[in-house]
Amino acid sequence: MKKQVLCLLVCGSFLFFAPAAPRAEEGMWPITEVGKLDLAARGIEVAAGDIFSPEGLSLVNGVVQLSGCTGSFVSPQGLILTNHHCAFGAIREASTKERDYLAAGFLAPSLKEEIPARGYTARITESYRDVSAEILSSVAPGMTPAERTKAVEKKSKEIVADAESRNPGLRAEVAEMFIGRTYLLFLYTYLRDIRLVYAPPQGIGNFGGETDNWMWPRHTGDFSFMRAYVGPDGKPADYSDKNVPYKPRVVLKVATEGVREGDAVMIPGYPGRTFRHMSSHYLAFEQDIRMPYIVDWYGHQIKLMEKMSETDRETALTLSGRIKGLANTMKNYQGKLLGLKRLGLLAKKRAEEADLERFIASNPQRQKKFGGLLTAIAEVYEEQAVSARRELLLSGLRTHIIPLATAHAVYEASVEREKPDLERESAYMDRNFDRTRDRLVRRLKEFHKSTDWFLLYHLCFQAGELPAGLRLEVLDKIFVEGYEQEGVEATLDLLFHRATLLDEKSVRAALAMNPDELRKLDDPFLKLAASLYPEHLRVREEEKKRKGALDRLLPLLLEVKRLYLARNYIPDANRTLRLTFGRIKGYSPRDGVFYKPITSLAGVAEKSTGREPFHTPAGLLELYRQRDFGRFAPEGFESVPVCILYDADTTGGNSGSPVLNGRGELVGVNFDRTFEATINDFAWSRDYSRSIAVDVRYVLWVTQKIGRGERLLKEMGVAF
Amino acid sequence: MKKQVLCLLVCGSFLFFAPAAPRAEEGMWPITEVGKLDLAARGIEVAAGDIFSPEGLSLVNGVVQLSGCTGSFVSPQGLILTNHHCAFGAIREASTKERDYLAAGFLAPSLKEEIPARGYTARITESYRDVSAEILSSVAPGMTPAERTKAVEKKSKEIVADAESRNPGLRAEVAEMFIGRTYLLFLYTYLRDIRLVYAPPQGIGNFGGETDNWMWPRHTGDFSFMRAYVGPDGKPADYSDKNVPYKPRVVLKVATEGVREGDAVMIPGYPGRTFRHMSSHYLAFEQDIRMPYIVDWYGHQIKLMEKMSETDRETALTLSGRIKGLANTMKNYQGKLLGLKRLGLLAKKRAEEADLERFIASNPQRQKKFGGLLTAIAEVYEEQAVSARRELLLSGLRTHIIPLATAHAVYEASVEREKPDLERESAYMDRNFDRTRDRLVRRLKEFHKSTDWFLLYHLCFQAGELPAGLRLEVLDKIFVEGYEQEGVEATLDLLFHRATLLDEKSVRAALAMNPDELRKLDDPFLKLAASLYPEHLRVREEEKKRKGALDRLLPLLLEVKRLYLARNYIPDANRTLRLTFGRIKGYSPRDGVFYKPITSLAGVAEKSTGREPFHTPAGLLELYRQRDFGRFAPEGFESVPVCILYDADTTGGNSGSPVLNGRGELVGVNFDRTFEATINDFAWSRDYSRSIAVDVRYVLWVTQKIGRGERLLKEMGVAF
Repeated sequence: MKKQVLCLLVCGSFLFFAPAAPRAEEGMWPITEVGKLDLAARGIEVAAGDIFSPEGLSLVNGVVQLSGCTGSFVSPQGLILTNHHCAFGAIREASTKERDYLAAGFLAPSLKEEIPARGYTARITESYRDVSAEILSSVAPGMTPAERTKAVEKKSKEIVADAESRNPGLRAEVAEMFIGRTYLLFLYTYLRDIRLVYAPPQGIGNFGGETDNWMWPRHTGDFSFMRAYVGPDGKPADYSDKNVPYKPRVVLKVATEGVREGDAVMIPGYPGRTFRHMSSHYLAFEQDIRMPYIVDWYGHQIKLMEKMSETDRETALTLSGRIKGLANTMKNYQGKLLGLKRLGLLAKKRAEEADLERFIASNPQRQKKFGGLLTAIAEVYEEQAVSARRELLLSGLRTHIIPLATAHAVYEASVEREKPDLERESAYMDRNFDRTRDRLVRRLKEFHKSTDWFLLYHLCFQAGELPAGLRLEVLDKIFVEGYEQEGVEATLDLLFHRATLLDEKSVRAALAMNPDELRKLDDPFLKLAASLYPEHLRVREEEKKRKGALDRLLPLLLEVKRLYLARNYIPDANRTLRLTFGRIKGYSPRDGVFYKPITSLAGVAEKSTGREPFHTPAGLLELYRQRDFGRFAPEGFESVPVCILYDADTTGGNSGSPVLNGRGELVGVNFDRTFEATINDFAWSRDYSRSIAVDVRYVLWVTQKIGRGERLLKEMGVAF
Repeated sequence: MKKQVLCLLVCGSFLFFAPAAPRAEEGMWPITEVGKLDLAARGIEVAAGDIFSPEGLSLVNGVVQLSGCTGSFVSPQGLILTNHHCAFGAIREASTKERDYLAAGFLAPSLKEEIPARGYTARITESYRDVSAEILSSVAPGMTPAERTKAVEKKSKEIVADAESRNPGLRAEVAEMFIGRTYLLFLYTYLRDIRLVYAPPQGIGNFGGETDNWMWPRHTGDFSFMRAYVGPDGKPADYSDKNVPYKPRVVLKVATEGVREGDAVMIPGYPGRTFRHMSSHYLAFEQDIRMPYIVDWYGHQIKLMEKMSETDRETALTLSGRIKGLANTMKNYQGKLLGLKRLGLLAKKRAEEADLERFIASNPQRQKKFGGLLTAIAEVYEEQAVSARRELLLSGLRTHIIPLATAHAVYEASVEREKPDLERESAYMDRNFDRTRDRLVRRLKEFHKSTDWFLLYHLCFQAGELPAGLRLEVLDKIFVEGYEQEGVEATLDLLFHRATLLDEKSVRAALAMNPDELRKLDDPFLKLAASLYPEHLRVREEEKKRKGALDRLLPLLLEVKRLYLARNYIPDANRTLRLTFGRIKGYSPRDGVFYKPITSLAGVAEKSTGREPFHTPAGLLELYRQRDFGRFAPEGFESVPVCILYDADTTGGNSGSPVLNGRGELVGVNFDRTFEATINDFAWSRDYSRSIAVDVRYVLWVTQKIGRGERLLKEMGVAF
């Protein structure tokens, strides 16, 4: 089947983009387009067919999606090279106060001692086909926007269910390539037994921590090794000590000689989301309302959690993942806000749209088809702006207060699970419910009573400031007329005191209950979640309405833009397999400063303070002093190269992507962008869009010299 | 006379340094040495005789010392180009809340409206001669260290008095070139009527404020124009509206075409103090005791003053000069502490001295002469370390609390002025007393009651923590058994409430009184100053003892180092006229980063926030947007160059020095070093020693386009 499906794509044509985009480096190219690109001009020596071959094996078969990140198979025994921050959850879960693998690092001396990484999966793309026509057949002209969204959702679910029933063992997923217009059905294999093999100490793998996150020059050894296992029959299986290492069809070769400034690179991976085709109104909403709110609220959470972590290492371990996640997003948004200002992106988009409106008005036929288009889009966002604070607050309640988030999910499960499978929200469909449950249970480990108490207190306080007409009556009722009438603090105390859904067993049990059974639990967070639930439903309905409206409007916007500019577009990133190209290249972040594209061990020594986040293991500094660089300080380098910079086009989800040289060999592991490049989500910039990888020479040097992981180098066929 | 004196120098030879120092860029060369240097190798096209000509006129005659800074004559009408921060005192003094020249800038529309800069002097070097033999003839072998110091001081004063009596109108000063060994007598003309001509708005002249101070990339237009006036007879005179512009013997030509990367530069100026020839013990004392204390104490003062300034612009104006001065020193010390750590200077000096000790011990004759030398030096600093906190605290009381500092000076004047002139401390000798009085009176303008109250409170608190044996009994008595016995706060309240020496009239009157008359004033600060006075005398005696010891020891150290290393030294900077050479050159402050050596207007726009310290005048940003660069954006530059960077060897006192190109034309005004280059005072570093000037093109562009000071460009002969 695969063969036939691919032919549909390759033999057909994606009308919505032209390979000759104006800027060579811009573009997260759908993997199917690689055959149409001028690879030689991009410095790529291997043939298109070696990168992606619809009918045979190619480099991209060595690439997996690893729980939201990307990873590479680097040995015939299923060894996966990815980022430390992608393996972070597994390392933290394996760590305790006494056996602190985050701090000390971890090397499994042999296969047997590799530690199961609960909840991790490795997703391998098997095939895909265009299902736009099928999906859009469900949309009827007279539908309201919300009806439209629901129809598309329902049709997608049907297609997925059908595909999965016809391909046992594979998972099907529909990806929207262009909003409201183009949809692809992907078939994936999910490997479910993933184990931790080697993680360097946090002082290497997360060197620089939040201070250096999104920053260049960088000196983070952000890599880890994991391994995929399958059942003895070679099929995907849950963890079992009977399982055997997975044999990948393609293994990426590691280029021990690394790169030099100006070298070509290409990066296959699963970039998450970009928003380059959205209108100025979307940008304005993000810039003026949503991102500033998130920066504030996340900043508040981080400050609180850092305070809580100061004196107690156990609390610090409990909260480290939450802090990391929040800080990551916050700094990303700060970078975006800076980039938006610096590039004047909003003004540019507005000017572009003003031109577009003139273009539309200048022709009666165009006016008929597109007239009022931008006003209609504006109205969607204007409406959203009115209730934005209220919706953001509800989202905070639903996601950031762990006992309330748990209660919300438990309550929602009880409601959704009573519906027929295909009508449920995706997370509660049978095919997804296991993962939903696992995620929920794993999050309980991050619960910290005082922290969650203060966070809820903060949101209640915010709720008190909502204007009339947008109040959350439920909270008003509880905290103003509340059942305890002893003030917010006492009410919150009771809430946390009586909470019952804080351990794995209770939560797993509650997730199997129907609404009646839940009511009997008499859990105060469940009650609160239930009272807030109608509010959440209203917001969801609003969201579907907005999406339905935009699904109709945005394709029109793209269409008229294409007419006006007479050129085509690459679809926004959507977690599907993409390929991007670039060069090892520095940049000027501001007047008078030039950032070089390769950093070195010397910089690690410079930054090391002996304190977090610059707490380098003493052994590394000693090796540096002794100039014990093994074979990994190539000619012309004063010491071991640590991180590399390139102008390829990446975004979140490219974490862990292999950086390949022109011969298709692995020279680095992508893990971040520069602060200035967070703007990538909205626009690629020749001056500022730079991504960051840990240099493969540092990966190998650390693994050998710090980790004593010679067995892994041997497995990868690396001489040392 | 000049001719004969100079011949002594030029025909003789400075044995203590060799022109062929190992590093081309290192060296603040005494101006007399320029004839011995290979100028062509340094990229200098003009002949040595054009730079310095003992018998005729040369470039250095266009350079003046301007109240602790350096300035250049740039027009035949005595127009002086110097730094904004050098003119700062004059601008602030001319400013009021209503007429805020600091904020708005100032241009005198014509000569008549140029504003007298009270207390400013321009010092012109007339001649000099070596007086080492005369001075050292006063030292007898049997003297104690303190006796030695006093003998040298007395002899110097006699030489000065003699020289001044034989050269009416000139001032004589003795400069110690090598500690305890070499002394030069300089004859200077002091021009005493200096006026403010043009100062850009603070948003240009101090753009970046303390944030950017000591930093690169820099975008500060740190320049101002002043003018020297003389009496109608052409002789130095105090301010009078009858005075006329001074006619400098040499005027520096302004090079409107500016510089490019790699161009040679040379900088004449009056660098203040360096300490490159001191021992490791001195460095250790600075690094471990004195500088950390100052960083703490200045930091405390700054924080307090900033708090006080927050809400009231008048208070902010009152305190701005104090904050600026303190912050400048504090950041300098922070940079030095970083540099010391980074270069491992202390360890290097110690290793050097250990080698030296082995060298001494390896030869009986050397052992006889130099044995125990380093131990003896160590002992001086060990002794100083014991009482360091106490001495630093006393120094804080004597200098940083304005009413107490005033009272101290008034009391000391009454004591000193009863002695014969030549026996007085230098500040109270007849020849210096006017300036001392002026300085004291000017400082009263910086008094701010609450600030000084809190500062004194802080020092009293510190005094309470001194260990037994080092207590300040006077403070203990006042504040513990004190006359009010109502606690420190009440005592301080009374002190400030009853203070009488807070206005110019009272202070001038008090400075004329003898101790008896002062006692009758019954001023509480005077009483406190009098009680503390014996402590100050003891410290001064200690200092003289230490200096006497080191004056004997350090020449021996230099002598044996020269024997050991078989090379010579350039004397440390000592406020005498020096020349340094370099190239326009960037540097790498840390791994992965390269700083380019020329910044531009683009960077000003980037940094501008609309708030202090990045509050660029709107007009400038508008000119940038309109790309109205006049003739000052040369080919290859995207906009007007703003600041330039070079590896010449400078230190404090070089502020305002002209940066000259190979043809001896002015291309910039030196105003700062990089953070990494604060280490210059201890050692020059090829990697880090970089100094900063405002580019002459920015000076001219701002003066023309922002200041509308076309008359000044015309006066300088600059076409626009």
